[in-house]
Amino acid sequence: MGLLKEFDQGQLTQTGQELHRLAADLYPICRSLTGDGIRRTLTLIKSRIPLQMFEVSTGTALFDWTVPKEWNIRDAYIAGADGKRVVDFQQCNLHVMNYSVPVHAAMPLGELRPHLFTIPEHPDWIPYRTSYYKEDWGFCLSHNQMLALEDGDYEVCIDSTLEDGHLIYGECYLGGRSLDEVLISCHACHPSLANDNLSGLTVATYLAQFLCGRDLRYSYRFLFIPGTIGAITWLARNRETAGRIRHGLVLTCVGDEGGFHYKKSRRGNAEIDRAVAHVLSYSGESAEILEFSPYGYDERQYCSPGFNLAVGCLMRSVWGTFPEYHTSADNLDFIRPLQLAGSLRVCAAVLDVLENNRRYRNLNPYCEPQLGRRNLYRSTGGETIGAEINARLWVLNLSDGEHCLLDIAERSGLPFSAISEAAELLCESGLLALVAEDDGGEQPRRPIAMKVPRTCHAERSEASAFPSPSKADSSSLRSSE
Amino acid sequence: MGLLKEFDQGQLTQTGQELHRLAADLYPICRSLTGDGIRRTLTLIKSRIPLQMFEVSTGTALFDWTVPKEWNIRDAYIAGADGKRVVDFQQCNLHVMNYSVPVHAAMPLGELRPHLFTIPEHPDWIPYRTSYYKEDWGFCLSHNQMLALEDGDYEVCIDSTLEDGHLIYGECYLGGRSLDEVLISCHACHPSLANDNLSGLTVATYLAQFLCGRDLRYSYRFLFIPGTIGAITWLARNRETAGRIRHGLVLTCVGDEGGFHYKKSRRGNAEIDRAVAHVLSYSGESAEILEFSPYGYDERQYCSPGFNLAVGCLMRSVWGTFPEYHTSADNLDFIRPLQLAGSLRVCAAVLDVLENNRRYRNLNPYCEPQLGRRNLYRSTGGETIGAEINARLWVLNLSDGEHCLLDIAERSGLPFSAISEAAELLCESGLLALVAEDDGGEQPRRPIAMKVPRTCHAERSEASAFPSPSKADSSSLRSSE
Amino acid sequence: MGLLKEFDQGQLTQTGQELHRLAADLYPICRSLTGDGIRRTLTLIKSRIPLQMFEVSTGTALFDWTVPKEWNIRDAYIAGADGKRVVDFQQCNLHVMNYSVPVHAAMPLGELRPHLFTIPEHPDWIPYRTSYYKEDWGFCLSHNQMLALEDGDYEVCIDSTLEDGHLIYGECYLGGRSLDEVLISCHACHPSLANDNLSGLTVATYLAQFLCGRDLRYSYRFLFIPGTIGAITWLARNRETAGRIRHGLVLTCVGDEGGFHYKKSRRGNAEIDRAVAHVLSYSGESAEILEFSPYGYDERQYCSPGFNLAVGCLMRSVWGTFPEYHTSADNLDFIRPLQLAGSLRVCAAVLDVLENNRRYRNLNPYCEPQLGRRNLYRSTGGETIGAEINARLWVLNLSDGEHCLLDIAERSGLPFSAISEAAELLCESGLLALVAEDDGGEQPRRPIAMKVPRTCHAERSEASAFPSPSKADSSSLRSSE
Repeated sequence: MGLLKEFDQGQLTQTGQELHRLAADLYPICRSLTGDGIRRTLTLIKSRIPLQMFEVSTGTALFDWTVPKEWNIRDAYIAGADGKRVVDFQQCNLHVMNYSVPVHAAMPLGELRPHLFTIPEHPDWIPYRTSYYKEDWGFCLSHNQMLALEDGDYEVCIDSTLEDGHLIYGECYLGGRSLDEVLISCHACHPSLANDNLSGLTVATYLAQFLCGRDLRYSYRFLFIPGTIGAITWLARNRETAGRIRHGLVLTCVGDEGGFHYKKSRRGNAEIDRAVAHVLSYSGESAEILEFSPYGYDERQYCSPGFNLAVGCLMRSVWGTFPEYHTSADNLDFIRPLQLAGSLRVCAAVLDVLENNRRYRNLNPYCEPQLGRRNLYRSTGGETIGAEINARLWVLNLSDGEHCLLDIAERSGLPFSAISEAAELLCESGLLALVAEDDGGEQPRRPIAMKVPRTCHAERSEASAFPSPSKADSSSLRSSE
Repeated sequence: MGLLKEFDQGQLTQTGQELHRLAADLYPICRSLTGDGIRRTLTLIKSRIPLQMFEVSTGTALFDWTVPKEWNIRDAYIAGADGKRVVDFQQCNLHVMNYSVPVHAAMPLGELRPHLFTIPEHPDWIPYRTSYYKEDWGFCLSHNQMLALEDGDYEVCIDSTLEDGHLIYGECYLGGRSLDEVLISCHACHPSLANDNLSGLTVATYLAQFLCGRDLRYSYRFLFIPGTIGAITWLARNRETAGRIRHGLVLTCVGDEGGFHYKKSRRGNAEIDRAVAHVLSYSGESAEILEFSPYGYDERQYCSPGFNLAVGCLMRSVWGTFPEYHTSADNLDFIRPLQLAGSLRVCAAVLDVLENNRRYRNLNPYCEPQLGRRNLYRSTGGETIGAEINARLWVLNLSDGEHCLLDIAERSGLPFSAISEAAELLCESGLLALVAEDDGGEQPRRPIAMKVPRTCHAERSEASAFPSPSKADSSSLRSSE
Repeated sequence: MGLLKEFDQGQLTQTGQELHRLAADLYPICRSLTGDGIRRTLTLIKSRIPLQMFEVSTGTALFDWTVPKEWNIRDAYIAGADGKRVVDFQQCNLHVMNYSVPVHAAMPLGELRPHLFTIPEHPDWIPYRTSYYKEDWGFCLSHNQMLALEDGDYEVCIDSTLEDGHLIYGECYLGGRSLDEVLISCHACHPSLANDNLSGLTVATYLAQFLCGRDLRYSYRFLFIPGTIGAITWLARNRETAGRIRHGLVLTCVGDEGGFHYKKSRRGNAEIDRAVAHVLSYSGESAEILEFSPYGYDERQYCSPGFNLAVGCLMRSVWGTFPEYHTSADNLDFIRPLQLAGSLRVCAAVLDVLENNRRYRNLNPYCEPQLGRRNLYRSTGGETIGAEINARLWVLNLSDGEHCLLDIAERSGLPFSAISEAAELLCESGLLALVAEDDGGEQPRRPIAMKVPRTCHAERSEASAFPSPSKADSSSLRSSE
């Protein structure tokens, strides 16, 4: 029941170190929109959670888009007259403009220059550039590297292929009691950039791992996808069922030392928006709620007007606002174990709200029930009451079948967990009853055909800092399709 | 018509002194949830206003509660070895924990200690403690008194009875033209505590006295009840007709020198909430509007979800926030004549709003009517207009049958009295007409069977600082049942 | 399409000088509610825009009012014993209380005094006074003038007539594609007062001139009317069709150096209210939005409850708040060319919003359309986007058929012009389609019977600082009746 409570039984420090270790494992891989980089990344994640990998052929039509060619790269460099590499993809995969077409030529510096990208304000950093939809090639290097280039001829080599192939994405579906879904989406297409978005990948992976095997109200869908085209691909292929997504979060830049930022869904007052705002207000860290805007990450697609899903975006520092953004300085030092773990905890707390945010009915709605004779009140009159009793009074007073627990938490100024615990206690005392609601179709609790990926439980028992769920119910775990 | 105007014809200073004198008369009585203390208190009030007293037997079921045993006390003390009383109920009735079961025993100080309550931070004050629903006994004393107790044996005596009997409460019903009611409720169960709640009792009594015999739009019901169980009792016995309560106020702690606090009803934007906020904004005293919360006084019961009545709570200092609260320092010096009278004036102003808050229709809704030829405007053009003309323009502009006068007062930033006077004047000029509304059933103006309590008019003519209503219409006065 | 863009092709400085010149031409005329002053004023305006003049006979009933007698004045003075004029209407037409009945008498100063008005706080200024609805006479003079008056007899002469005649007002109707109208109203009854309201007259005249001959969505109705009685007259004579007014502005005091003030319509959140607030927030000048109140200028009548039209009032300094108000100090120096032109520009920008504020539908509502392949996006990934692309994303995201462009401008924090341009571009790209809406009946684009006042085009080509509309479509221009 209490996801947050169960989460808090684990060791935050240890969890942070595990998260950072996973990020470190993924860091060297040269990811892109398509290609083997994202394939290797998803395979690594699949060793931890039940992940299905989907491949969609180049040229497939997706709404207004088509699946691009698949890009793969083996090597790339700029070498001087002496054959010595002055820019070397093997040193840092940011050196090649992502999606560069193959090139192998000798050319003077003057001809090469238009293909070079640097950041003069941060002369030691390498920028990150892409050219997905315009066939081009280029190198990214530190400004100091460029200044050191002497006139003369250079050998320029990008050993890449851009050919018909596939777009690949990963999906982890954890079935709950309802077919209604919570979506967790993160982009997996950036090469060696840590905050953007290995932080999102690792937090999402651990969140899935934490939920795996639990008895859940909602079904959960985790998407590990290339940015923009991946979200479009998934939505185009799941247009009919996308409406099952009741709540969603895009996770990005959740590992740096900045305070939290939550960008609201297009709806602006969806339950996910309120849940995150509530949780962040109790996170103990600085937190800012941002209005929706149509520029950003994949919430752009989920919140396009045809879908208008209740999907917000959880960040620490906001993309584009910190100098390390899209540069080589967004490295493993830039993300911190404790911040990764703190972000994971916020996610757990948000899901705790979503899982438990129900409406109840006070079964003694006329006047207060006598809490004293149920040992739910203080015994000596004349003294003040504590927060626990206060939470009980709030739940009783507002449980008219209309107010959900989040309404009550917001109005009372008490944390959701206190309200939720009070509701549980009052239910046990027979004073409160859950109001049945249409969750969009409950799933049969014991579905007949089940493919439980083996990885899940194995990984959980061997690697996780999380406590096991008390009743690990494998039947609630299912892959999609 | 103008309750506030009529109120202001009286002498505020004299009224304050009368209120304080009544509080002083009631102060020595040892009230409790039940018993002779509250019986004597109600009898005193009944000598001033038409009060019906109701007795409900111990054990009667009331929703989730039952009427408790009746508690009465004659004497109580702790005496030293020399027979000298070191703690004496006759000195101050707070010395006995309210609802203490009888005890008469000798015991060493060590055995007595768990039954003693003090306030170390205020060593001269005696705390107020109760144990209504758990049979126990105890003494409250000043911390200095306790420190002076020497080791040794003490004679402990509480000469009380806790037996089957009755719960008693008083009800003053003043019939108006409509069966819709305004509820004024105050708890009458506290012993020698002045602000909490002799202040409420006296202000309510004088308010009833002020209304008595007037031609009123609403019917008024004043409840003088033991806290919590009294409200529950009344609501359980009047469940069907409680819905007639359109507006209500709990009065408590209205005599101290603090600024006003009004706690809104659970509805949050009921007419009573808006009326009180409006009146307080013009009271000339500091005033704060508090959101509803389910802890507090009897608004807890009136605002329970099954009833959800529009009942707020008017206070000066909020219970629990001032150090004198529930101690012997909440005495007759702590409440002030002028503050009592000021609270009464606020109540009169609030009722003035409720009584006169009607919707009107501008009979010349197309363009402004020509006020000048009716002598309702200034004659020389080019000069600015005064507040009176401004009020007329506001009333004409917003009287479209939708806006009530309180809407107009709020939107114009003018006091309700100015708006109300403008409406009256415009009606007289034939420019405005009252919109008929369903007041929940008008009472026949001359009801057939009437029991007019004799006390009312007698008291009013002999004791009151209020001017008599111009046409004292005894037929509008009726007791309940 | 882009009224503001076209306006900005003109020279603001030149426009300001033209506006001020027109004000200077109108300044010496002694206007009043009725009479030749307003007749001459309207004739001057008619030489610039297609104006119809209406005359309504004295005694005509208009709702609660009747048309007053017509007032005309030729001369007025106070002369000393030596025959020398000490107060002379020929020097300043404010010297006579407007609507003074004729008088010719000799009287001692003591008898004269009650008929003299001064402003002691500004001893050099002459006040402006009227006595429209009470037959009286009086002189206004500077306080110093009055102090200089010696005891003795004076010849007092007001050579005026107050007789049955007509009330006159002017109306300029510019037909648009819809019968729905935008109303621009200004009072034309004040004598030599520049800000109040030659500023409004000149800005309205130039605004009409600017619109004249353009292909417009709305029809436009400009009213040049005596204050109060003029608005009442127009509304009484056009009661049935007044409902066509969808948006309206009263223009007054728009020439002084103060910041803008916009008083909202009675509705408070009408499209005109939002449009003006939006435009003012980008005006580069200080601007304050005021709530509606029923005192003021002719919005009083338009916003009377029977009409409740969406008409606000645009001002710079608010009447009554600046010391020059209704005095001789409100002269041609008090209004400034640049401020007049700035007010005109705000009006053009507001009309630009109204003309273009439509709802659109994103034709690719599922995910974003691929802007890149339409050259509507930046080509190199990893960099930030500019305001233009941002506007496109906002328009696409919110164009669900529900949000109008003003909604989008408000929510995005981008100026309406940027949003409007983005919508136009996206329409051209086939990504967006206009949502058809009921504009209250489109007019036939080429109406059969047309009386095109000759003045309009002639004036426009010879006098205006505005660029000509690209396709001057004379058929969209029509006079009323």
